[in-house]
Order: sequence, then structure tokens, then C-alpha cells
Amino acid sequence: MLAEIITIGDEILIGQIIDTNSAFIAKELNKIGVSVYQITSVQDDKTQILKALAEAESNANIIIMTGGLGPTKDDITKLTLCEFFGDHMVTNKEVLANVEMLFEKYINTPISDLNRKQALVPSTCTVMMNKYGTAPGMWFKKGEKVFISLPGVPYEMKALVTNEVLPNLRKTFKFPYILHKTLLTYGLGESAIANRIEAFEDSLPSNFKLAYLPNLGKVRLRLSAKGMDKKAIEDQMQRLIELLIPQIEDIFVGFEGEETIETIIGAQLKERRQTLSLAESFTGGKISEFITKHSGASKFYKGGINCYATETKINILGVDETIIKAYGVVSNEVAKAMAIAAKQLFQTDYAAATTGNAGPEKGDEQAEVGEVCIAVAGPSQVIVENFNFGNHREKVIDKGVNKALEMLLKEILKN
Amino acid sequence: MLAEIITIGDEILIGQIIDTNSAFIAKELNKIGVSVYQITSVQDDKTQILKALAEAESNANIIIMTGGLGPTKDDITKLTLCEFFGDHMVTNKEVLANVEMLFEKYINTPISDLNRKQALVPSTCTVMMNKYGTAPGMWFKKGEKVFISLPGVPYEMKALVTNEVLPNLRKTFKFPYILHKTLLTYGLGESAIANRIEAFEDSLPSNFKLAYLPNLGKVRLRLSAKGMDKKAIEDQMQRLIELLIPQIEDIFVGFEGEETIETIIGAQLKERRQTLSLAESFTGGKISEFITKHSGASKFYKGGINCYATETKINILGVDETIIKAYGVVSNEVAKAMAIAAKQLFQTDYAAATTGNAGPEKGDEQAEVGEVCIAVAGPSQVIVENFNFGNHREKVIDKGVNKALEMLLKEILKN
Repeated sequence: MLAEIITIGDEILIGQIIDTNSAFIAKELNKIGVSVYQITSVQDDKTQILKALAEAESNANIIIMTGGLGPTKDDITKLTLCEFFGDHMVTNKEVLANVEMLFEKYINTPISDLNRKQALVPSTCTVMMNKYGTAPGMWFKKGEKVFISLPGVPYEMKALVTNEVLPNLRKTFKFPYILHKTLLTYGLGESAIANRIEAFEDSLPSNFKLAYLPNLGKVRLRLSAKGMDKKAIEDQMQRLIELLIPQIEDIFVGFEGEETIETIIGAQLKERRQTLSLAESFTGGKISEFITKHSGASKFYKGGINCYATETKINILGVDETIIKAYGVVSNEVAKAMAIAAKQLFQTDYAAATTGNAGPEKGDEQAEVGEVCIAVAGPSQVIVENFNFGNHREKVIDKGVNKALEMLLKEILKN
Repeated sequence: MLAEIITIGDEILIGQIIDTNSAFIAKELNKIGVSVYQITSVQDDKTQILKALAEAESNANIIIMTGGLGPTKDDITKLTLCEFFGDHMVTNKEVLANVEMLFEKYINTPISDLNRKQALVPSTCTVMMNKYGTAPGMWFKKGEKVFISLPGVPYEMKALVTNEVLPNLRKTFKFPYILHKTLLTYGLGESAIANRIEAFEDSLPSNFKLAYLPNLGKVRLRLSAKGMDKKAIEDQMQRLIELLIPQIEDIFVGFEGEETIETIIGAQLKERRQTLSLAESFTGGKISEFITKHSGASKFYKGGINCYATETKINILGVDETIIKAYGVVSNEVAKAMAIAAKQLFQTDYAAATTGNAGPEKGDEQAEVGEVCIAVAGPSQVIVENFNFGNHREKVIDKGVNKALEMLLKEILKN
């Protein structure tokens, strides 16, 4: 069973926004056993949308579109769908009531005719109510195929996919079972891992696939399988993972799925009833953001100091100024002092600290662009490592975040 | 002149990664006058890649691919390109030397035959050297059309686009001029803006387009134009913007381009020689991350406290515990006290503070899910506002970040 995703909007084709919708939809479809054959992004242009719809119809059974459903003139998806299905627009009373309710309850500006037009939908579609916005989801049948049009606003689209699209697809089709397991590794390159597990990879059953997903210091290994017999696939996956893990034990940190390294850290700390604090210089709060974007962080995360300025490291975090003067602000000694200071200030079991020069200029610091020091203070020891993450600011910051999380998890697992 | 982007990789089609490459490439192509007709994401599958290449060839003059160039078995782009062009692989000595240099200089593991195979390229392509990784960029000619294959790792791809692809495209083709101007607005909905500027929109010249890009409390208005006469387009754009701005003066905060609201804040503070600190609870460090991801933040940003835990608000930030007990931790009073405390602790001219319940559970707090309070302390006053941003954690956090930046900028511009 194949699906195709079409994301509609000039803003995608000129690169003004990154299309995050198709990744979400693809992931959710995979979970219910639907493979995505292709993702296509097209402009708000009738001819192009019609062409993409015709091509998608020839490739897939399920076609999901997002975007182009706003109230303004550049949004033409509904009119185009009318043309594609030879349909016309009618006012849907339930949608109209929803639009009026949303304006009354949440929106400060008065409702206009433009807003009310959001209740116009092609007459043959089944409407899926959008709790968070004025544009409804629309479900069309054409022969054996299903066409679904969703709003482009990510959280509106996500709620419709979860609450309406997936349950309705399950009722409409019988799906094969797709299983992915992703093993998260830190510290070894893609090809070094591939060399090490070559025999494992060559002996994979034909319905299994292995992929390497390298990203700034971590490599994810994804095993994928597909078939009609759920139990058999799960058993086979389990056996393969039991074969694989001993071969990568030194670099394996956990499974990714709903899990990421920061949720694994959170789970470990909560289980141990231990706590964490942070002192971030060149990572600027990004480690803290990673930790707190998952709910439940308040159970183990006491907080952090974003000490971008040297004076903040001294005055607020409490690092001894003489250490900074003696070794320079980007030094193992300062990173260690920062981790120790944060651990003490926040009274936590662990503290991670980062200091470095993310670039692009050398600035006042002695450190070269890309030079960073990362320390983790734990219950029994303080570890510190230094790196040169190169001359690309975004990459230096992201590698720093990944490396700090890796060092932190390894230290937690030691205790 | 049309281009098409093909991103290759199973990880995109199963939603494991978000394709950020195509947005970057599309933006860069637009700058030199090339419109992107379509973006297509396909699996690491020979048949599919060949089909996408053939379709792209019929739509566009410039076809840019990313991905599938790694050393492992799942990467098949090079072999597929050989088939597409009827070509065969040869070893490129310069690439081999680069791979060997990268391993010697930056990589801890010894080089393997798999790594050396990265130097195999189709014989008819022109190689573009990749300074940051082992997979080179490749440039193919087929009649009047150009096919370009780039590595999927974003920072490697970006460097190749900037240093090789764009200059070579300029040498090869003559491009029309494309101009985008994006006006950043905060505080009014998409359709309310559309109503207000309807006459302006209806009177736009035929080579101009206006688009509305709403996103969690901000709406970007993008004016796009295309033509061969650069000067005429720039003059016309200038006149239109001078017409538009007076109509949206109350909600307009600046132009987006290279600019975002946080870079506008940074520029304003640097110009005024003023400083900023932060106290973030439910936003967890994300405002700080936004501020510090741009270089030069050290000129005005002294730092912040991520005070996710109530005890951190009291013990480290210095908020009076009696205020928290009297009003609850999510309250205007606590937000104000946090901003005032941060401003004093860091000795800054401005401080922004956030407190709220991002959900998904109510937790120990009295506050409902989605309730947030945001305060900004400035040189002469402290402002505070409260909101209910709904029951979606990610959305609550992102709306909180946007709103805090909006309030901060407005307060800076008042003084």
C-alpha cells in the first residue's frame, strides 16, 4: 500500500519555510503500514497542482496534500480540487459554526466574510473538523483511491492526521505491517561501523533493510522490515537486534523511536532520582532547550545558566576569575570549573558545561574558531574533553550539544 | 529558467529526518534568478531515482540532487547516475587525496577501502571538491541541461552550493532577476491583514505576487517579483513597500531576509549600546538559543537563567518566595518579579522572563495547560502579559518564544 504526499505553497519552493509536514505524515503513515512512495512540493499554481495530483494518482493509493487552504487569494487548493474532481463548492454549516466559535473564543479581531468563506468546501468531500483552525480537512474518494487535503499549519495538520486521517485510513484499507528500529550510536564514523558489521548486514533477510544515518558525531542505524505477519516480523527483528548489539556495545547508547538521547538521559535520571543542571556558553541554552522540550523535565532538571558573557561565568555562575585569566575562557580548566560551579549552585547530582568559540570570528578570545571544551561533573568525578568542531557556527553548536549529551549519558551510566 | 530539486534517501520517505536541504537550495537558486518548479523526495531505489530524473529533465533546465553518496550499501546515487548517463566509474585522484587528508587530519579511525571508494565517480562528470566530507559534488551536462549531485549532509551541501554550484551556474546560464521582500508583522491575524490591504493587493503589477505566511502569532508578508530589468524591479518594489508600510505600521516590526526578529533585536541593542538578560521557565532556554545562534550576541547578551524548577527561581534568580506562594508560580506577578530579578542580577538594560505551563499535564501547578505569563523589564518600566496558548506543548513553547521576542522588540523601540 503506497501513499504520496504533496505539499503545496510558493513559500516551500522559494525556500522561505522548511517543509516539516511531510516528515510527520510519512512517519505516521509508516506506523500503520503505509509506505510513502514520493513526496512532492509544488507551487500555489493550478496547473502544477493538477499535474502533481495526476502523477500521484498513478503512483499511489493514498494521496495526502497539505497547504493552500488559507483565506487569502494566494490559496487555491480548494478551487483546484473542485476542478480535479469536477465538483463545486458548498457552505458546510458545521465548519461555519466552528469558524465563528474560534473567532469568538480565541481571536481578538472581528470575523470577516473572508473568514466565513473558510466554510466553503467541495460538495463531494467528507469534512474532517479542525479544532485548532478555520481550514477543515477534506477527504475525497475516487475509485479505489483516497485523496486527503489538510491545512498547512503544522499543529492543525498534526491533530487532523492523528484524530481523523489515520483512524479513517485503517477503516478503509487493510495494511501490511512495517517495523523500524533505530539504534543510536555515538563516537564512531559511518564507514567504521559498516566495516565492523559487514557480515551482519550481508546476512539480513530479504524483507529487512539496514540504513546508516550519520549526523554530527552520532550515527543512527535503522533496521526496517515489512510484511503481513506482525508477530513473525517482531520476532525476527528481536533476534537481529540481539545479534547486532554485542557488535556495537561500546558505541550503542539506546534505541531511538519515541526516544532521543535527551529522553534517555531524563529516564535514567528519573529512575535514579538524580538531578541535573547546566552551564552553557557557546551552546547558548540549546542543551537546556533539548532537555525541556519533553514534558516531565521538571522531575530531574533544576535549571541552567546561559553564561555567554565571561562576566556572567564569574559573577553569576561563580567561576574563579583567576582560572579564566590563567588558562583562557575556552579551556579545560574553565569548563571543569563551570561544571563544578553549576553542580554546587543548583545542588544537583550532575552538571554539564560548555565553553568554546563557535565562530565565525576569532573575537577577543584566544581560542581558535571551532575550539570547544565540554565538562560533566558527576557524583564521583569531573570529566572534560576538548574538540575542534571546525569553522561552521551552526555545526559547532550542534556538535557541542550532541557531544555534551553523549558525555553526560555515558557518565550517568557509569554510576 | 527552472530548476528541480530531488532529495534522495529512505530516511526522508519514512519521516526520520526533515529535508532541510531543499529549502536552502531553493532560497539560494532564487537569489540568482532561478525558480524552483518542483521539489521531489524519493527513496534510495534505482527505479525511482531514474524516474524522478526523467521527470525532472522534462520540467527543468537545472536538476539538483542531494543524498545517497555515502560509503555504505544503501547509498546508490552514483551507480544510478552511471546508468542514467550510460557512464562508468573511475577513480578521481584529487578526491582520493582529499579523503586521505580528511582521515589523517580529523578522523580518529583508520581509513578503509570503503572510505577510499568515495573517490570513485562517473567518468563524464566534473568533480566539485568537498572540503568538509568525503563525498564530492558532481556536475553533469546533458544537451542544454545541467544535473548536479551533492552530498546530503547539510553543511557539506551548503558549502558546495555556495562555493561551486552557484558560481558555475552563473557562468553557464543567463538568469532573470528575482526579488523577494518579506515584511515581518506581529499581533494581527492573516485575514485581518488581508482585509486591511485588499486594495493594495488588487492593484499589484502583474509581475508581483503577495503571499501571507502565518506562524504562531506572527504573519510574514512576502512580495515577490521577477523580470529581466533589475533596476526597474527594485524601484517598483521600493514604491510598493512605501505604499504598504503606512497601512500596517502598528504591526510591522521589520524586514526579514537575512533578518529575523532576534537579529533585529540584536541590531537595535548594539546600536543603543544596551544589554539583555533572560529568565526562562517554560521556554527552557529557547529564547537564549535564538539570541545566541547568531554571531555577535556577546556584544549585548549577558546571559540567562533557565529556571525550570521553582526552587531555581527562588534560590538562583532571587524571586521572593512569598510572591510565588501568594500568586502561584504561573502569574503576572511572578513573571514581573523574574524579569526584574534577571535585570538586576545580570545588570542589564532589558530582561525578558517567561513562566507558564506548557503541558501536556496540569502537574502540581495551579495553572491550566497553556497558561503563560511573559514579562519584559526595561529601563523605565516593566510590562507583563498573560495568554492561553492552548494544549499543544511544542506550540505553547514556540508561541511563547515568539511573543517574548515581540514584546521585547516593542519595548526596545519605545525607548
